Amino acid sequence: MPTVGMIEYAQASAEVRAVYDDIMATRKVDWINDWINNFWKVLAHHPPTLKRTWESVKEVMAPGALDALTKEMIYVAISASNQCPYCIASHTAAARKAGMTEPMLGELMAIVGMANETNRLASGYQVEIDDALKPKA
Amino acid sequence: MPTVGMIEYAQASAEVRAVYDDIMATRKVDWINDWINNFWKVLAHHPPTLKRTWESVKEVMAPGALDALTKEMIYVAISASNQCPYCIASHTAAARKAGMTEPMLGELMAIVGMANETNRLASGYQVEIDDALKPKA
Amino acid sequence: MPTVGMIEYAQASAEVRAVYDDIMATRKVDWINDWINNFWKVLAHHPPTLKRTWESVKEVMAPGALDALTKEMIYVAISASNQCPYCIASHTAAARKAGMTEPMLGELMAIVGMANETNRLASGYQVEIDDALKPKA
Amino acid sequence: MPTVGMIEYAQASAEVRAVYDDIMATRKVDWINDWINNFWKVLAHHPPTLKRTWESVKEVMAPGALDALTKEMIYVAISASNQCPYCIASHTAAARKAGMTEPMLGELMAIVGMANETNRLASGYQVEIDDALKPKA
Amino acid sequence: MPTVGMIEYAQASAEVRAVYDDIMATRKVDWINDWINNFWKVLAHHPPTLKRTWESVKEVMAPGALDALTKEMIYVAISASNQCPYCIASHTAAARKAGMTEPMLGELMAIVGMANETNRLASGYQVEIDDALKPKA
Amino acid sequence: MPTVGMIEYAQASAEVRAVYDDIMATRKVDWINDWINNFWKVLAHHPPTLKRTWESVKEVMAPGALDALTKEMIYVAISASNQCPYCIASHTAAARKAGMTEPMLGELMAIVGMANETNRLASGYQVEIDDALKPKA
Repeated sequence: MPTVGMIEYAQASAEVRAVYDDIMATRKVDWINDWINNFWKVLAHHPPTLKRTWESVKEVMAPGALDALTKEMIYVAISASNQCPYCIASHTAAARKAGMTEPMLGELMAIVGMANETNRLASGYQVEIDDALKPKA
Repeated sequence: MPTVGMIEYAQASAEVRAVYDDIMATRKVDWINDWINNFWKVLAHHPPTLKRTWESVKEVMAPGALDALTKEMIYVAISASNQCPYCIASHTAAARKAGMTEPMLGELMAIVGMANETNRLASGYQVEIDDALKPKA
Repeated sequence: MPTVGMIEYAQASAEVRAVYDDIMATRKVDWINDWINNFWKVLAHHPPTLKRTWESVKEVMAPGALDALTKEMIYVAISASNQCPYCIASHTAAARKAGMTEPMLGELMAIVGMANETNRLASGYQVEIDDALKPKA
Repeated sequence: MPTVGMIEYAQASAEVRAVYDDIMATRKVDWINDWINNFWKVLAHHPPTLKRTWESVKEVMAPGALDALTKEMIYVAISASNQCPYCIASHTAAARKAGMTEPMLGELMAIVGMANETNRLASGYQVEIDDALKPKA
Repeated sequence: MPTVGMIEYAQASAEVRAVYDDIMATRKVDWINDWINNFWKVLAHHPPTLKRTWESVKEVMAPGALDALTKEMIYVAISASNQCPYCIASHTAAARKAGMTEPMLGELMAIVGMANETNRLASGYQVEIDDALKPKA
Repeated sequence: MPTVGMIEYAQASAEVRAVYDDIMATRKVDWINDWINNFWKVLAHHPPTLKRTWESVKEVMAPGALDALTKEMIYVAISASNQCPYCIASHTAAARKAGMTEPMLGELMAIVGMANETNRLASGYQVEIDDALKPKA
């Protein structure tokens, strides 16, 4: 059980329902098949956080200069790097839905591992930033 | 100064030079213009780590199911999430060289920020993984 | 099961019991209702760590310039940010006992999320510290 | 220098100026004394991120169930725990402006240190969550 | 269940079996007693990652200037610090097999906790590196 | 400059001087050669934190089941993994003083990198803990 329980549609205030409705419309899912993630049902305990977080995620993850698949893979990469079990599960599912194949997942996870390794080697050895890599004024 | 100083080509053993030569050949850079990153010149103090890390990075970052630009952007995302100054500087430069535009960088950083936020909301509220998100046996 | 099992009062050495007694006296709980957290029963395998950690926590968490509720909320914030499941559960309970309401929890978690987001934006973009923010000599 | 340079008021688009104006009005600072933090001047390269981040921070940090000082101290605590140099500097300054005294800072940092220690002891020893600490269904 | 399921010996390709065979030979375990860790059976979904990761771990963990026990304890320390449940479980077992006693584990975990505490105190207070601690050119 | 400035011996209260004296006696250094680390001079602003942290570090780092060199190397490993610049610099120096050779440092850093890589692979792939690795009740 999460810290605060989950708020189902039937119990939800009008304010919370408005967000749930937008999530379902945006993701083309419906309540009958019960597809609002637990994450949102928990955030619903604090409606301003529910609304702000949903609207931010919706804006950030909309296709733009980067396509939806690339965006979801980056989300998986960070969640794996941060070792957040919930976010790994939910964004791996979302990335697969957006077209991530098993070889893509394999290469993605390899980069996650490698970057975490070299990040510590660079910091651990106190490597200084190359002059050529410093942004110009 | 890094922990162990940097080993330039002129001082390097044959074993280290072989790795430097492969870095320059793979990246199509040369020594005259001095473009072996400080990172490798520091790792050169422990030749097995230099060789293994370089060969691993070379394999992991070669285009495959994911293209070079996507791979570099994922590397930047993790380095930014881990707050490794050296790796942010070097991989932002590499991603730009691979074609990352400023709008792509903007969207990438927005995802890094957002994923770090929702990772903590999910974990902090102890949200349980949805049944539908659990991998099947 | 934890790595090393848990040491109950009946099995405990005099050295460990002295710490358990102080925990119960400080927290006004008793053993009949079994309210020494699992955390301490595990640390009891290494008595110097049990004693030092308890005495440190007791000193740090005693009301002073900050009151008990504020201190517990800061503890929850860091545990959520670090994604430590045990510490989130135990300190959320402690903060509620100290008076944290649901709206307070909602605002606390919103800050945890936001700070994790802006921490990565600041580091990821390599933002330099403003001159006005640098401490004076 | 940050990754993307800083956008000053004179160079800013109308969209960016609108955010700058709101920051100055909210914080009661003015441009003559040049008090828009570098953080915002860098985010201005990606106007949607500038606008969304500012509006989120403004909403999250407004006094509510928690007062402004408590909120800023929680922000400092997370930034210190995450070791983000920019955010430590800027939020320590903000917390002091909101009334944080030196003894409060001392107690705050002591909790940051202690929570980071016990988070790893709990996870490292694989301590299981006490039944009494599990949220009820 | 992990993201991608586990590949048992009977289902494995020749490429994967070659790695499994080397793991069993190196660790002096056999398949009958089913002692290839779940970790490798999952990585087997991406054979280049399986092979590269195993060969890297094998090289890095072989006794050299540091003995096997010290190496395993360092691995436990980092896994505990990173709060990786799987890695804490597997490397604590490996360290015990290599000779780690309970008092050693107790002292190891005490250092993990202490280092995490002082890391945040040093960063949180923005302590500058002593001149005497800076590497010489 | 750190957040709170540094307190030199001449300015220090009797309470702070008592800790400084114990640091110098324990480490066999003297004030003339100015060898109290900046870290302690900063903590001195909050005497209870100075005293508690010093006494904890002194106890944890004293040789016991693990010798001084092993302890210092574990401290370096965690500091490198956490990317704390101050702690990397100070504990690398301390480990060298305790006998860490360059090959030892090379192997240590290789483990830090490797553990950070496999921690994320295990978590990112949601690998379940092997039954054989679960502690027995």
